[in-house]
Amino acid sequence: MRYEELTLEGRNAVLEAFRSGQTVDRVFLQDGCQDGPVRTILREAKKTDTIIQFVRKERLDQMSETGKHQGVIAYAAAYHYATVDEILERAKEKGEDPFLILLDSIEDPHNLGSIIRTANQTGAHGIIIPKRRAVGLTASAAKASAGAIHYTPVAKVTNLVKTMDELKKRGIWFVCGDMDGEVMYRQNLTGPIGLVIGNEGSGVSRLVKENCDFAASIPMFGDIDSLNASVAMGVLSYEIVRQRMK
Amino acid sequence: MRYEELTLEGRNAVLEAFRSGQTVDRVFLQDGCQDGPVRTILREAKKTDTIIQFVRKERLDQMSETGKHQGVIAYAAAYHYATVDEILERAKEKGEDPFLILLDSIEDPHNLGSIIRTANQTGAHGIIIPKRRAVGLTASAAKASAGAIHYTPVAKVTNLVKTMDELKKRGIWFVCGDMDGEVMYRQNLTGPIGLVIGNEGSGVSRLVKENCDFAASIPMFGDIDSLNASVAMGVLSYEIVRQRMK
Repeated sequence: MRYEELTLEGRNAVLEAFRSGQTVDRVFLQDGCQDGPVRTILREAKKTDTIIQFVRKERLDQMSETGKHQGVIAYAAAYHYATVDEILERAKEKGEDPFLILLDSIEDPHNLGSIIRTANQTGAHGIIIPKRRAVGLTASAAKASAGAIHYTPVAKVTNLVKTMDELKKRGIWFVCGDMDGEVMYRQNLTGPIGLVIGNEGSGVSRLVKENCDFAASIPMFGDIDSLNASVAMGVLSYEIVRQRMK
Repeated sequence: MRYEELTLEGRNAVLEAFRSGQTVDRVFLQDGCQDGPVRTILREAKKTDTIIQFVRKERLDQMSETGKHQGVIAYAAAYHYATVDEILERAKEKGEDPFLILLDSIEDPHNLGSIIRTANQTGAHGIIIPKRRAVGLTASAAKASAGAIHYTPVAKVTNLVKTMDELKKRGIWFVCGDMDGEVMYRQNLTGPIGLVIGNEGSGVSRLVKENCDFAASIPMFGDIDSLNASVAMGVLSYEIVRQRMK
């Protein structure tokens, strides 16, 4: 449903997407299909690090809207991804300390879109998302971003922890939003920073959290567990903005 | 669609909702229906200030899920509304300065739910929404509130400006989120306060804005117009929290 507008069906449509350089998030291939075009799709998918899933014909039939999937269905990104280097370049061009948003597996496209929108307004230079177990730049995310997707670059990486390690060597500090952290108002959030926001249900994963330099919490006086992920991102980001403005 | 779970169809179902004291947001009556039960529904609707709309049979047929609307369809609130006095009472019980959230016509149930969730976490004592041109406590809003709807009271008023006038006499100051206002970090947001959040598309309406004591803006460095309404509410609310915590 959420990919509706971006579903590609049939061998030609999917091959064409790969050939034109469009980002294909995921390819579903029918179990047992082994002919030429399918093998080309498989090769292209591996080359571009697209997630491949072999499924039964019944599953494809169910997913298909046209009824003519020919054993191949793919989900394509609505928008192009940037690289992490391009994001850092933007900070450099502006002469600003890098301000990055890392999303540790946001699943809801509306949250992703809203986060891109807020990132744009806070002056963050870009967003980094993981390739797996996370929503990508789908049509719904684009819509929820209210146009910000055209301005704020989003990079997709295979391994968030590895990317953080590389960025640390370039002088960036990482803070994650976490209920067990020190209250954000009492932290120094200035300088080159990467803000890590966790998954809607499970928060920041253990490994990512261990790789953060510190954890910041939003004070909560309520009866429930947490804030909506995009609201939490907004509140934490604007604390960074406030400290940068001082 | 968004009211799906709360649609009442048929004379008995709607009458029963009124009798049991359930909040009925809106009643659709078929043009020309004038019999006893319909007149009773009309009377109950007027008594409880429910919005009444006369529509053609075709419209009701279209809205109906059961196909048996008998000329009457109603949208009922998923949850009960509080009164403004009950909200103020909560602040008094806790020995705190009142902290209210006023929503000047939020239309998206997910935004309303997310706002209730954030209000709960910031320690706000309640939310005030207008009766017309705004989404109410629907099932979708309840879901997006992540349970906060059970803790943070929501009051529905006929006229937001009139309610503000009454609250001003009780010592409450009103600040609205507005792009033309002074940057929020430079404002004094302590004391008994009502934070006004505007509509997703059009912001705070002129009359409501004129009745606010001051306007506060969120600094924006982006290429687009605004933030998502529930994110803006979160950022402004947490600036109030920060100033209260100092």
